[in-house]
Amino acid sequence: MTADREAPVGVFDSGVGGLTVAREIMRNLPSEKIVYFGDTARVPYGNKSRETVTRFSRQIIRFLQEQNVKAIVIACNTASSFALDTLEKEFDLPILGVIEAGAKVAAAATVNGRVGVIGTEGTIQSRIHETYLKGIDRKITVYGKACPLFVPLVEEGWLHDPVTVEVASRYLQELKDKDIDTLILGCTHYPLIRSTIGKVMGDTVRLVNPAYETALELKSLLAKLDLESTQQSQEEFPYRFFVSDLAEKFQHFANSILPYDVSMTRKIDIERYEG
Amino acid sequence: MTADREAPVGVFDSGVGGLTVAREIMRNLPSEKIVYFGDTARVPYGNKSRETVTRFSRQIIRFLQEQNVKAIVIACNTASSFALDTLEKEFDLPILGVIEAGAKVAAAATVNGRVGVIGTEGTIQSRIHETYLKGIDRKITVYGKACPLFVPLVEEGWLHDPVTVEVASRYLQELKDKDIDTLILGCTHYPLIRSTIGKVMGDTVRLVNPAYETALELKSLLAKLDLESTQQSQEEFPYRFFVSDLAEKFQHFANSILPYDVSMTRKIDIERYEG
Repeated sequence: MTADREAPVGVFDSGVGGLTVAREIMRNLPSEKIVYFGDTARVPYGNKSRETVTRFSRQIIRFLQEQNVKAIVIACNTASSFALDTLEKEFDLPILGVIEAGAKVAAAATVNGRVGVIGTEGTIQSRIHETYLKGIDRKITVYGKACPLFVPLVEEGWLHDPVTVEVASRYLQELKDKDIDTLILGCTHYPLIRSTIGKVMGDTVRLVNPAYETALELKSLLAKLDLESTQQSQEEFPYRFFVSDLAEKFQHFANSILPYDVSMTRKIDIERYEG
Repeated sequence: MTADREAPVGVFDSGVGGLTVAREIMRNLPSEKIVYFGDTARVPYGNKSRETVTRFSRQIIRFLQEQNVKAIVIACNTASSFALDTLEKEFDLPILGVIEAGAKVAAAATVNGRVGVIGTEGTIQSRIHETYLKGIDRKITVYGKACPLFVPLVEEGWLHDPVTVEVASRYLQELKDKDIDTLILGCTHYPLIRSTIGKVMGDTVRLVNPAYETALELKSLLAKLDLESTQQSQEEFPYRFFVSDLAEKFQHFANSILPYDVSMTRKIDIERYEG
């Protein structure tokens, strides 16, 4: 493979959540172009099986390859948990997930060795954060908790609503009882309710958002592979957005969280990319 | 088309919600065999576009045809709202939705002519209940309200939880303010939180669950077409269940709401049924 250093980076998620990762890449790797794909026709991934999430992710990587990306970031914890291992073997292309970065920061941050992880059912059941954290430091104890209502609450826009505070209190109580000092936000939607989660957990618990660290990991990966963009893009649209459904709704949401005007979002038929 | 009166009826939904309709068919048409399909790989449909929901529904009808069904019930309000009109023209097979049945009961039930409808974003935006209700009685006024958190709350199993009561109070207040006397449960998940909705709306509001009426409509349709099963099935599995993901989880949910032991659920690749 001879990749072009001026080629874009591919970033994908089940929907809009991965935009929190794209945002960090835009901030920290400003010369890089991005092709973003949100699988809005099949969102969410968090309550689906390893096999299905892997198949969906494979189709998306095929699509991104067609867009000539030089590297791919799986900006979705569920897809990173279920599909990264399998797909990095199948494709001749550097692929990065969001789990490892979050685990590294959490391992460095914890003082009492008690780390919590919140995420979708799929991510929590996979226990993948525990695998990484134990790999870094066997003495760390990991407590996982699935929070299936957080994504719909974020998508409903109830970010600071008393209902969201009540749901968060309910979900997070058992992690508080475990006396954790560090909590990984193991779903890309969760940074959008970070302040609510922080209020419930209290000041003594450090919240880890893997998005920033993933952007830094991408930066060193591109450097290592000699694939860093060396010139500021002259393109009119350095950031291109694709979805599998409802381009307009996606664009509206994207505009609310990106420091950038998302003016073009195109809908494509992702099922066409089945092998 | 020469359909076999002993062939099964096809019933489909985006996931488990349509089982509330299947349950009424089992109760009221006990001689009929059923092939049920739940699109658990792509659930939910309620926040997706007309085009996407129609494409998914078309694939499912192709699958059900392969199962030699004699008629199809779209046991999903979103798919009925978006896809029924288009698909009944494409297929040489009787297809029934759940909207018309609910509208008929509501029109007969209302005294003050003020009818509320709750459902997914897609169903409410389609305003299809209004079209049917106005077709029956032009003097009826229809008030729609999308309740996107109800489906995730039901799937989380928080059927009688204070959080669900609070969310319901929030969503339903504007319908109470309109002084409706009849409320259509325009999503097949909602009968499962009927008691919570009833508590919020109060005794004076009649709740309409289209599942029962849809079963009766199916009965008269089959009679009209001379397609009623005339013999009690001797098959070991008169009810067969198929899903696009997580067969075990579906089966668990099905067993909690059906008066019948769901012993066999098979997973199939639904995307294969693209034209």
